[in-house]
Amino acid sequence: MNRFASMFQLRFVVSLLLVLPLLAQAAEPLPSWNEGPSRKAIETFVQAVTEDGSKDFVPPAERIAVFDNDGTLWSEQPMYFQLLFALAEVKRMAPEHPEWKQQQPFKAVLEDDQKTLAAGGMDSLKEILVTTHTGINTEDFDKNAKRWLASAKHPKSGKPYSEMVYQPMLELLAYLRDNGFKTYIVSGGEVEFMRAFAEEVYGIPPEQVIGTTFATEFQDQDGQLSILRQPKLLHNDDGPGKPVSIQSIIGRRPIMAFGNSDGDLQMLQWTAAGTGKRFAGLVHHTDAEREWAYDRDSKIGKLNKALDEAKAHDWTVVDMATEWKRIYPFDK
Amino acid sequence: MNRFASMFQLRFVVSLLLVLPLLAQAAEPLPSWNEGPSRKAIETFVQAVTEDGSKDFVPPAERIAVFDNDGTLWSEQPMYFQLLFALAEVKRMAPEHPEWKQQQPFKAVLEDDQKTLAAGGMDSLKEILVTTHTGINTEDFDKNAKRWLASAKHPKSGKPYSEMVYQPMLELLAYLRDNGFKTYIVSGGEVEFMRAFAEEVYGIPPEQVIGTTFATEFQDQDGQLSILRQPKLLHNDDGPGKPVSIQSIIGRRPIMAFGNSDGDLQMLQWTAAGTGKRFAGLVHHTDAEREWAYDRDSKIGKLNKALDEAKAHDWTVVDMATEWKRIYPFDK
Repeated sequence: MNRFASMFQLRFVVSLLLVLPLLAQAAEPLPSWNEGPSRKAIETFVQAVTEDGSKDFVPPAERIAVFDNDGTLWSEQPMYFQLLFALAEVKRMAPEHPEWKQQQPFKAVLEDDQKTLAAGGMDSLKEILVTTHTGINTEDFDKNAKRWLASAKHPKSGKPYSEMVYQPMLELLAYLRDNGFKTYIVSGGEVEFMRAFAEEVYGIPPEQVIGTTFATEFQDQDGQLSILRQPKLLHNDDGPGKPVSIQSIIGRRPIMAFGNSDGDLQMLQWTAAGTGKRFAGLVHHTDAEREWAYDRDSKIGKLNKALDEAKAHDWTVVDMATEWKRIYPFDK
Repeated sequence: MNRFASMFQLRFVVSLLLVLPLLAQAAEPLPSWNEGPSRKAIETFVQAVTEDGSKDFVPPAERIAVFDNDGTLWSEQPMYFQLLFALAEVKRMAPEHPEWKQQQPFKAVLEDDQKTLAAGGMDSLKEILVTTHTGINTEDFDKNAKRWLASAKHPKSGKPYSEMVYQPMLELLAYLRDNGFKTYIVSGGEVEFMRAFAEEVYGIPPEQVIGTTFATEFQDQDGQLSILRQPKLLHNDDGPGKPVSIQSIIGRRPIMAFGNSDGDLQMLQWTAAGTGKRFAGLVHHTDAEREWAYDRDSKIGKLNKALDEAKAHDWTVVDMATEWKRIYPFDK
């Protein structure tokens, strides 16, 4: 055997040695998923688009997977967590706003008066969101979001909100990235709020977080630069707003999409309608014991049209109660 | 020597074998840059932020580098190439619009009447841009842009526009990516127009192209889905619009920025003002022989305030004439 042949053999042997531990790891990539239809559909899809020589092979650069956040990656009951953040911010900011003691909807928030708050409807919520989310630069807003995330506890579980994430979905995100996918959040949540935890919690960097946005302005005050958040909704990243932001920001149609509500319908349709093999999935909240059970009649995360569409088109509908071994990372 | 020790040695030897060719390649990463101050500044910066143990080390996830396009990555004379595309599109679309023969500014375009066109000013240009860039879905627009790029020739060089790119900047993009940077375009050009060539020409994927945008709408016509481009400017990615889009889309402050005109000033300021080591660079068009020479008084790519700011803050100003061995890939 000459030196080159020997070197070649060495490289081959060592390649095997380097690859074996990866294979061992890959044997059980989704440990919190029962061996049900959803896990099988996911694995079959990933294999089809990643295996060399597969007729459905997709180059890594085109392996874009998009995920809704509320109800898909973390819980959204009893209320969107971002609204709970906004209510907490009103209380934190109250000392600087003594007038709020007499001024709705802030008075209701400070007095925990759910009835008055509910009666105020969407207009009240918008006012609370705008007051707590804008008129502030992006760096300070990020600090506010992180402060709340580090201290606030979920009213039912008593856990930090950043732990109310779905363990099976964390595994799915990692599994996709291990297979060359780029994982994105495409959610109705406000983009900077989600960025405050997405990298640490989901492994999704800020540039892969797409959400609802407020208009911003570049400020230069005597050389002190900042990006100021304006009290003006720029993009509502819900329903048809999702394919719009996907095209505008990613510029490529995803090959995989996961949602849980009718607000995800157009994102799922847009993804599924692309040429080649595609995956459209829904998290179905069926577990009143370990999480919550809701769909067609829910005020939050209503899943009605998208559930019909999923059935009509054979999309993957994850039955949380039967298909997930664990819901949260803190579950045993 | 037991089997494990031997295996370890094998791995070490093979690792070296695998790494050596990379080192050889890395020895000369910027072959079209003369050994001038700009090349030195670039290499010093990249070393400082990437070397393990460096006090200026930046984790790969935060190595964001942003580049203007017109005049920074490709030429912009005698007119922004995208405007030349728009003019060509008017001619291509003319048979479907017989009324344009009598209707300005289209009549002037069809008759190559530069004088009338110039007299129409920005309003004429806007009308031409909107007519050729909107009222069409994103996939069809992409085809139009690619068709033009594949056939049109630059009036001076006779080369396709996609070859009018700066060889030294191509090398810089590759050098940064080899060092774990994520390279972005942040340009006044329309985002989908740039995406039509950025991946092939610059190695920059669509999701790393940020630009001026038109509003879009998701359309569902009997199950036929599309993203329709609306005749409404959504974001003007110039001047202060650049840090705004950087924060909105990337969500992280770049550590390196490169531009060539006053439209890049705020992007450079925003980048340079971040904490830690930062790089702000300008391409200075000083080469009337091989490219064009223009700065403070130019109608296109005016470089005045940003040049003063660069001198005041010791930013890197690339003297094209003396620092670049070659301008275009087709140069000998």
